[in-house]
Amino acid sequence: MATAKRALTSAFTDLAALFGERFSTAESVRSHHARGETFYPPHPPDAVVFAQSVDEVAHAVTICARERIPIVPYGVGSSLEGQVNALYGGVTIDLSQMNRVVRVSADDLDCTVEAGVTRKQLNSHLRDLGLFFPIDPGADASLGGMAATRASGTNAVRYGTLRENVLGLTVVTAEGKVIHTGGRARKSAAGYDLTRLFVGSEGTLGVLCEVTLRLYGLPEAIAAATCAFPSLEAAVRTVILIIQAGIPIARMELLDEVQVDACNRFSKLSMPLTPAVFFEFHGTKRGVDEQIEQVGEIAKEYGASDFRWAHKPEERSALWQARHDAYYAGMALRPGKRGWATDVCVPISALADNLLATKADIEANGLLAPIVGHVGDGNFHVSFIIDPDDPAEYGPAKAVNQRMIRRALASGGTCTGEHGIGFAKLGYLKEEHGEAVELMRAIKQALDPHHLMNPGKVIPPA
Amino acid sequence: MATAKRALTSAFTDLAALFGERFSTAESVRSHHARGETFYPPHPPDAVVFAQSVDEVAHAVTICARERIPIVPYGVGSSLEGQVNALYGGVTIDLSQMNRVVRVSADDLDCTVEAGVTRKQLNSHLRDLGLFFPIDPGADASLGGMAATRASGTNAVRYGTLRENVLGLTVVTAEGKVIHTGGRARKSAAGYDLTRLFVGSEGTLGVLCEVTLRLYGLPEAIAAATCAFPSLEAAVRTVILIIQAGIPIARMELLDEVQVDACNRFSKLSMPLTPAVFFEFHGTKRGVDEQIEQVGEIAKEYGASDFRWAHKPEERSALWQARHDAYYAGMALRPGKRGWATDVCVPISALADNLLATKADIEANGLLAPIVGHVGDGNFHVSFIIDPDDPAEYGPAKAVNQRMIRRALASGGTCTGEHGIGFAKLGYLKEEHGEAVELMRAIKQALDPHHLMNPGKVIPPA
Repeated sequence: MATAKRALTSAFTDLAALFGERFSTAESVRSHHARGETFYPPHPPDAVVFAQSVDEVAHAVTICARERIPIVPYGVGSSLEGQVNALYGGVTIDLSQMNRVVRVSADDLDCTVEAGVTRKQLNSHLRDLGLFFPIDPGADASLGGMAATRASGTNAVRYGTLRENVLGLTVVTAEGKVIHTGGRARKSAAGYDLTRLFVGSEGTLGVLCEVTLRLYGLPEAIAAATCAFPSLEAAVRTVILIIQAGIPIARMELLDEVQVDACNRFSKLSMPLTPAVFFEFHGTKRGVDEQIEQVGEIAKEYGASDFRWAHKPEERSALWQARHDAYYAGMALRPGKRGWATDVCVPISALADNLLATKADIEANGLLAPIVGHVGDGNFHVSFIIDPDDPAEYGPAKAVNQRMIRRALASGGTCTGEHGIGFAKLGYLKEEHGEAVELMRAIKQALDPHHLMNPGKVIPPA
Repeated sequence: MATAKRALTSAFTDLAALFGERFSTAESVRSHHARGETFYPPHPPDAVVFAQSVDEVAHAVTICARERIPIVPYGVGSSLEGQVNALYGGVTIDLSQMNRVVRVSADDLDCTVEAGVTRKQLNSHLRDLGLFFPIDPGADASLGGMAATRASGTNAVRYGTLRENVLGLTVVTAEGKVIHTGGRARKSAAGYDLTRLFVGSEGTLGVLCEVTLRLYGLPEAIAAATCAFPSLEAAVRTVILIIQAGIPIARMELLDEVQVDACNRFSKLSMPLTPAVFFEFHGTKRGVDEQIEQVGEIAKEYGASDFRWAHKPEERSALWQARHDAYYAGMALRPGKRGWATDVCVPISALADNLLATKADIEANGLLAPIVGHVGDGNFHVSFIIDPDDPAEYGPAKAVNQRMIRRALASGGTCTGEHGIGFAKLGYLKEEHGEAVELMRAIKQALDPHHLMNPGKVIPPA
């Protein structure tokens, strides 16, 4: 897949003419686009263009396709499994300047945004309208990137993931055509669900340029609390019972005691050094009171103590900011080391076994690796804080990750709940999906016959 | 696409050997499988096999694929847009004998069923476990057929459609391989979303043989009521406000006065002859009381009267049975005529305009065509009760349908919210999705290169 120098020269001439100063082959720019939030070695593209419209993306793709040059879509670079590494060089299309909120319909509870709008930017835009978009991965990711990775976050237990919340997309195809998938109706039975095919395709089938999203009215009442548990098992059992009872909880986040310690230090919290769960309740005033009562009863059965309520909006913001900073808090425990964040997701009945076995495995291997989880979904994360260049650290971490994934698969779960495959989890896709991977490969071949769209990602080599 | 007689003979020999008495070329059996619930002319297959296992389906498909014979999957034949008509003959695979509930996990709120299990059969199975599956198209459809058509029904406003409630599938591909898509985790970012590609593919990409579904705990409290409105507009405005207020209503079904009259006669109800809305509320006791209060206030603002409560479970069942029988009630208004049920779905802000314009169009054309709607989703149905062989009836109905669809598309809506494309709405797919249809075509070509899977459906001729 090495790109001929002549092809690059020809494409670069046209891209430079089209994008002017927004076309760059500068070392610093290429280096900035060489990887996301990963410890994996960088793979810089040969050039970067900063697109400002769907048409510009279409032109850039058309030029690259003509010369058979790889194309890597890039939002804000917060992906975790190597999604933006330009494994085969080529042109990275940076979408961060496509950051307009195209339209908001408060009546229909939906909006359309350009791919580079971040989740925080969107929520700032929405606040005065009494609306919000709930999906919140740790980083302030772009909504195009979130759609491409099928992202979720702390609110998914109640509001779903990007899978459930994207109504439609504007996509530039591998041949440079602009298409619109889905629509604005809440449901449709008209044709193949291209929207959900592109959601989670990680830029390998086309470039997501605009996203139409479901929105939600800000709840009448919100309450949030942290709660300490005597053991990880007690915390997980509480979570499982809350889900099984059908309580419409908005957020339910587990932190093991290592993560609690990290958050105490990094975010100046003062939680007891035990496993903790962060809860948030949305609803009417009476509904929230009722949920709190139900959850309180279940938690107490499992020995929970020290419920601390975040009453004011700014206290709630601080609480969730601490949760979103968990990854950085973990890294701060070992300054100079890197974080390696991995995630799995399992049926809720298998959550306790999977989580406890992983915790034991981390300890048995003497690794520093805080655990956090969107546990209401059966999804949990391990952040190995290691020196990836030291085989004595990387080797055991890799083995723990592999065992964690294989346990999840054996439980009917998935090798990634929300981080995606990128190139780092390619090896597990076939273990999880078996022969179905051949259908994915056939779809990739059909929509991107020259393998130019983010090559080397999602679909493992045949 | 005419199938050579020699090919049929060869395939039939092998199918007869495999299926024994469950292979049939009898006129009566072929005729029974010639169309669903439609007025369109019948298209019988050349033969029918009654499969009892995934392996049998795989064998049947392999044999047909070898001889390039079309394959039509068939559940219970309740589809409305010609999905099961064997347009090019071939072999219909009847899945109704694949009716085992494979497993239920009450802890995980999920289950796996064979494709032929019907929604009522599943709910009977679940009742003692305190669980239910909410999606309920009018007919007692098979869950395989419901997944294939991306069905929804009266509960979709709260619980979503099959799109949101299928976790995974077992599919026999066009070449006769058995694959498993999705899994049992609530969310996953691992690879392309084949599950949602097959959901709504109407048998054109493979045969859905097993479906893994989300389940829900039976609500602590349920309340249902009918309510009369002074006008269709008042009813629709009420619905819109309830949705915009974010009230988590479980069901909200509109009937125009023509449909109310039909239901009164057919189901022995005694509702006032005005537009009506059927409501259902799910939640905790207190939550339901609160929802009722909120909805009551909104409805009264729009002049609603005559709230009639269905207090006992059997009264509720009778109420919803009447709603599910609406189509048959409509047909009973003109004995000897056929029903032609069509549906569109629009953003909720456009619902009033779309619905009222269609109502006026029906009246202006002197047609008998009751309107019902899953209006919380922006979805409504028109059932033309006509003699389809009489151009004076069929012509105007066709024109009203076309104008209704074009208005929906102009509003950002869809040409079908839940009935699917079949062959009857092929002409509208391109109007709705434009160039994106070419991607659907490329996917069809990739997964079914010989166009054997339910040919002539979903994807319009190039």
